[in-house]
Amino acid sequence: MTDQTADAPAADPSRPVLAIDIGGTKLAVGLVDADGQVLASRRAPTTVGADDADTIFGRLRKLCDEVLDTAGNPRVRGVGVGCGGPMRWPDGLVSPVNLTAWRDFPLRERLAEAYPGVPVRVHNDAVAVVVAEHWRGAGRGVDNMLGMVVSTGVGGGLILGGRLIDGRSGNAGHVGHLIVDPDGPQCGCGARGCVEAIARGPGLVAWAREQGWRPDDASATAKTLADDALAGDAIAREAFDRAGRALGIGIASAVALCDLELVVVGGGVSQVGALLFDPLHRYLRQYARIEFARTVRVVRAGLDQDAGIVGAAAFILAGDRYWSAG
Amino acid sequence: MTDQTADAPAADPSRPVLAIDIGGTKLAVGLVDADGQVLASRRAPTTVGADDADTIFGRLRKLCDEVLDTAGNPRVRGVGVGCGGPMRWPDGLVSPVNLTAWRDFPLRERLAEAYPGVPVRVHNDAVAVVVAEHWRGAGRGVDNMLGMVVSTGVGGGLILGGRLIDGRSGNAGHVGHLIVDPDGPQCGCGARGCVEAIARGPGLVAWAREQGWRPDDASATAKTLADDALAGDAIAREAFDRAGRALGIGIASAVALCDLELVVVGGGVSQVGALLFDPLHRYLRQYARIEFARTVRVVRAGLDQDAGIVGAAAFILAGDRYWSAG
Repeated sequence: MTDQTADAPAADPSRPVLAIDIGGTKLAVGLVDADGQVLASRRAPTTVGADDADTIFGRLRKLCDEVLDTAGNPRVRGVGVGCGGPMRWPDGLVSPVNLTAWRDFPLRERLAEAYPGVPVRVHNDAVAVVVAEHWRGAGRGVDNMLGMVVSTGVGGGLILGGRLIDGRSGNAGHVGHLIVDPDGPQCGCGARGCVEAIARGPGLVAWAREQGWRPDDASATAKTLADDALAGDAIAREAFDRAGRALGIGIASAVALCDLELVVVGGGVSQVGALLFDPLHRYLRQYARIEFARTVRVVRAGLDQDAGIVGAAAFILAGDRYWSAG
Repeated sequence: MTDQTADAPAADPSRPVLAIDIGGTKLAVGLVDADGQVLASRRAPTTVGADDADTIFGRLRKLCDEVLDTAGNPRVRGVGVGCGGPMRWPDGLVSPVNLTAWRDFPLRERLAEAYPGVPVRVHNDAVAVVVAEHWRGAGRGVDNMLGMVVSTGVGGGLILGGRLIDGRSGNAGHVGHLIVDPDGPQCGCGARGCVEAIARGPGLVAWAREQGWRPDDASATAKTLADDALAGDAIAREAFDRAGRALGIGIASAVALCDLELVVVGGGVSQVGALLFDPLHRYLRQYARIEFARTVRVVRAGLDQDAGIVGAAAFILAGDRYWSAG
């Protein structure tokens, strides 16, 4: 690790952080000030056609340059990054599932070359979103919380004792792989009955189709399924009940193990609202019965699409709480 | 909280800690030095007949006096206690499930009156055992571990980033209430399919009896069941397979959520050895499939019956890691 946090000029608190959010479909780059305000930001598709690793990195650099330009090219205090996993953490060698051109791509090292003399910190993109919710969103002031992102996958992050928990390899918070139905569907990880196998958007859609749901649109998504559920389709409603059950049971287990005060749920699938949260709360009440677990609160994420860059910035701006790797 | 850790004379590192382990059936008191060595110890039954709250406390005081006497009545550096839960933590108002004479008994306050001028720290007895395993047992040097005590109940404790995790109310580590079979047996907590409902000793015996197991001894325990399993009884073997499955799935979930390096399993039921650990490892391999989770090690506890007092002493002697309540 070469991390120049001790570099006094670079740590000047008036300087913004260059914050980067790298997903399978989009790149987002922002400049974030010490209060977590996004001063400027830009978005672009991650890949165009069959880009190679360097072309994608070049596009990211260009986006960074544009954002810095719009702000008059300030010197930055550090670079914080949330990137799709898996990755080698804290080394920042990334192999995002949905970005096959990057396999063990040395993202941290390449950014450190581009922005010398300041810390560059790369962590999981779901972790960045959860850190943002704790730092500036629905989890402000709470010491023990779980954040979940329910989307194409189910990811998350864990804050205990007021600090981000990393675990042995930076992978703590993989709430999508809590086992909630041991005889349930096969998960991408190889196990059965993980939260993710049941509650991820494509899992919902696949299950509904197996049960005979026939959407008008062949490329139907969880959003289509939600529309049909709201229109009264029984299979569609049951699909969300089943996802709510998986999430409720998974949360009950997490609360028993970690004695949480709050669970913050975000991500595309969570935007269906009551359709998912009503069964989630019902099953949570049924399975979180030990006394200390009963009072856990489950709320929707408070931040918008900027959460990824706000959290990435927090790895630099609030490193005492959110960056344990030194 | 009145906790006089800043009291310089009391913190003299040459002084031993008075360490207390309070279970439903036995009391254990020891003097422990800074290295975690037990200098002297005594045991006694917790209750005799229908003792009231003060009689039990008086017996505890007497046991403490005896231990101090045998060591020439040294001044102690503090008092560390592991006590059966639930309790109000860190206040130390205890209501042990198996000690009905104590309900909201002000154990910390009473001990603070008895030993003025030094810190008195009371935590869950399973947490004390896990802290002992981390401090001086099978978990030495490991930063991210779960400890489990599989006995009449299934308790535990969580060490992350090298520190004891307490959660919101000191209840983190309740691994017995991870849900591993949502349609499974009713648990004492009110939920269904908790690890504890399936894997606790009395749960094993009850299930085997339901399946038609007919032990010679009417007061048969998990030990009797283990003897029959080793003698080839099919129901008895299946009972341990089922408990191993519950533990393996529970551990898989804990590893996914907390990115653990090590799980240490102790307690009476764990002493049956391979009968439990073989299925535990088999199911763990089946359910801990995401890459970072595959390499978790599961080992048997390394300490003997003194673990409870060694861990209680660590709340004082290594408070930087094991006591977060200030």
